[in-house]
Amino acid sequence: MDTPVPLAAFEALCAAIQWNEQGWVCAVTQDADSGEMLMQAWMDREALRKTLETGKVHYYSRSRKKLWFKGETSGHVQELRELRIDCDGDTLLVRVKQRGAACHEGYFSCFYRRLGAKGLETDRERLIDPNAVYRTS
Amino acid sequence: MDTPVPLAAFEALCAAIQWNEQGWVCAVTQDADSGEMLMQAWMDREALRKTLETGKVHYYSRSRKKLWFKGETSGHVQELRELRIDCDGDTLLVRVKQRGAACHEGYFSCFYRRLGAKGLETDRERLIDPNAVYRTS
Repeated sequence: MDTPVPLAAFEALCAAIQWNEQGWVCAVTQDADSGEMLMQAWMDREALRKTLETGKVHYYSRSRKKLWFKGETSGHVQELRELRIDCDGDTLLVRVKQRGAACHEGYFSCFYRRLGAKGLETDRERLIDPNAVYRTS
Repeated sequence: MDTPVPLAAFEALCAAIQWNEQGWVCAVTQDADSGEMLMQAWMDREALRKTLETGKVHYYSRSRKKLWFKGETSGHVQELRELRIDCDGDTLLVRVKQRGAACHEGYFSCFYRRLGAKGLETDRERLIDPNAVYRTS
């Protein structure tokens, strides 16, 4: 989609969102080309604004308690293609072009395990070695 | 997928889930045939058990504070095709065959609005009239 999004559109979206008590909204992210579900995370108003301003997806990191530019370390950025909102306004569907791997474990999608008759099984291939990407400096 | 799922597989899944403080896990639901994202909701252990026992998706209703058999009123049930879990165990990807409309507003998906340059716009067709389905008795 064209970014930056006009301010009035951003404000209309924010008004439609049912932010939770922490001021976050649930974000589910899908690869726009393949339809594969990539991840679930959270956005606060700042993360949403940065996403719509830059065209690169930003989240709110609950563990680090700050803005999280997805792919900043790994280079595996998510380019925003489309943003959708659900009926009750508490979830955003973020459709993206995923560069590299969405998962910090090195898989294209964070959902690389399925439930089988014997429990969880990994049925996806690792694209990259996470140790090679997330070096401790 | 084959249901009911063996008890050991259910227990392995439950052990991998990072339940939140309320005892819920985030569930994002996708139509398995089209790849279209349908909805986001929550499951507690009971909802997950009923889903894996019956092959029909159940959630935990936060508003009604009880087990929610999706489609019980409308007939628009979700038949479980595949269940996946993300890397940190706090989100389930529920892949289903959606019967009828997933959204109580009558749309196939709850994500029937997209962000455009002028704000939110509905770019999906209503499949059914919600007033005809959810009659007050």
